[in-house]
Amino acid sequence: MANENSTVISLVENASKGDRRSVSRLLTLVERGGISAEEVAEATHKLAGKSHVIGITGAPGAGKSTLTASLAKDLATSEYKPAVLAVDPSSPLTGGAILGDRVRMEEASEAGAFIRSMATRGHAGGLALAVPGMVRVFDAFGFNPIIIETVGVGQVEVDVASAADTVVVVVTSGWGDAVQANKAGLLEIADLFVVNKADRPGASDARRDLELMIDLSQVTGQMSRRPEIVMTTATEGEGFDEFKKAIFEHKEFLFEGEQISVRRSNRWKAEVSSRLDYLLSEVAKKSMEDLEEKEGSSPGLIAREMAKNILKKDEFR
Amino acid sequence: MANENSTVISLVENASKGDRRSVSRLLTLVERGGISAEEVAEATHKLAGKSHVIGITGAPGAGKSTLTASLAKDLATSEYKPAVLAVDPSSPLTGGAILGDRVRMEEASEAGAFIRSMATRGHAGGLALAVPGMVRVFDAFGFNPIIIETVGVGQVEVDVASAADTVVVVVTSGWGDAVQANKAGLLEIADLFVVNKADRPGASDARRDLELMIDLSQVTGQMSRRPEIVMTTATEGEGFDEFKKAIFEHKEFLFEGEQISVRRSNRWKAEVSSRLDYLLSEVAKKSMEDLEEKEGSSPGLIAREMAKNILKKDEFR
Repeated sequence: MANENSTVISLVENASKGDRRSVSRLLTLVERGGISAEEVAEATHKLAGKSHVIGITGAPGAGKSTLTASLAKDLATSEYKPAVLAVDPSSPLTGGAILGDRVRMEEASEAGAFIRSMATRGHAGGLALAVPGMVRVFDAFGFNPIIIETVGVGQVEVDVASAADTVVVVVTSGWGDAVQANKAGLLEIADLFVVNKADRPGASDARRDLELMIDLSQVTGQMSRRPEIVMTTATEGEGFDEFKKAIFEHKEFLFEGEQISVRRSNRWKAEVSSRLDYLLSEVAKKSMEDLEEKEGSSPGLIAREMAKNILKKDEFR
Repeated sequence: MANENSTVISLVENASKGDRRSVSRLLTLVERGGISAEEVAEATHKLAGKSHVIGITGAPGAGKSTLTASLAKDLATSEYKPAVLAVDPSSPLTGGAILGDRVRMEEASEAGAFIRSMATRGHAGGLALAVPGMVRVFDAFGFNPIIIETVGVGQVEVDVASAADTVVVVVTSGWGDAVQANKAGLLEIADLFVVNKADRPGASDARRDLELMIDLSQVTGQMSRRPEIVMTTATEGEGFDEFKKAIFEHKEFLFEGEQISVRRSNRWKAEVSSRLDYLLSEVAKKSMEDLEEKEGSSPGLIAREMAKNILKKDEFR
């Protein structure tokens, strides 16, 4: 363990000097979890807190990867040093995507962007744990902005996206897409909407649906700033400048007022919560290993018995 | 609470006599969670265990709803008394779907099928908790088979589907769809594949991709029986008979051997595990409420402190 710790320290030292392979190894340690991940978290925590975190989410096939790759490439070829964390089974990095995206990502990478993908499964609830840790590594070593791409279906994925400073929700112009985004819980977390594939029929309907839903949610006071809606045809690059402009306008809005500190405080709390859940779930997993099926016993009763054995008395009522 | 309990007892009595409104109210109690849900679980546990549970999952737009509605309608108009639990934001029941599906579902309902939808969000990890409880209610009051429809993206949704006796994974003929299903963790849980929209170009490619992936996973011994692949054009009813036949063949396979008891034992364990996780997460939530941000404190350290306060000493190392 002392050895592991000294590894982390030297990796952090090298990463601070700009060594990308050390950054990559730190990301891997965080992704794997366990004690080394904790050590990386401790070591990078005090270095981080400067980067703008952009979350890009939406249904599979909406065009998130194309927008992400275009943004990363554009920023990397100007004065920025962006990082991309693709939490998506259909990410161009993991082979399941269209050629154009892969080419864009490669160009972004060649221009200096740091591109990293991670699998959405096999993390056993640890996805919500690994992502903040990996973002912190990017942040600690000067990558800015950090773009998280997630497929916006499933609670964990929505939670991961909602931890960003600027949350972009991508919908296509298909009938009912905006409605589905709403149902998936994406409406409440959006700072910016992109209606992609705006060249297809139905794009203006999608926009109108979104406007209506925003109006409705404004009345109930869910949002602090009306999210902008940008129309794009990402594969053609159409609307890209407006997309980029809207992201930077939102960033300005955040940093002008107190919004940024509110968001970061919420993010800190969300991470504490994920980590606490994880620690408790590990204990639960350990006690599941010893469980034998008791013929005819109701799962609820057995679970309560197990909880009693795990928790301090005053925590269990 | 005594009052609540007597409500549950009388609902169970009425449901046993065939009163559908009582079944519906029991489902609502389970969906809401809490003490009443526990009571329903206790009351229905001993009545359940006879029904065949079919899980139908796949990416949004793959055609799950059409297949589910067609199957429910077909079974309800023959000698079966099926129930459908649609765990899907795009379910025809929740308004986000095509008219044809809604008509089919209504016809199934009129023929005696019990149709119920539930939201995928707002369950705070309780989706994995509510679904087994709702299935148990259907089972206890003679609904058979019970069809669970879930959108196969996100770990919770995959877990929910994988708890069925017969797991159907629906892919479309789009390029790379089979690959994406594999990445989402759907390949390992499939007992039966449906390649839907088989009239579109690429259907035979999708089939070949699946065959290849099944071959690969057979080598590593992940599956106990080679999953069948059925080609359908669900909206036209093409391939429906083969789809239904394959489901019943799998059911026979399960009930002939020991497979069914293995699956049910696994399902029992999975439910104990979900319930234990839930009990612990409630305790975690309670302690999060009192948390104040400590300037500059690392989330990992804070979470460990909190875990120490919650757990018995010997559970925390």
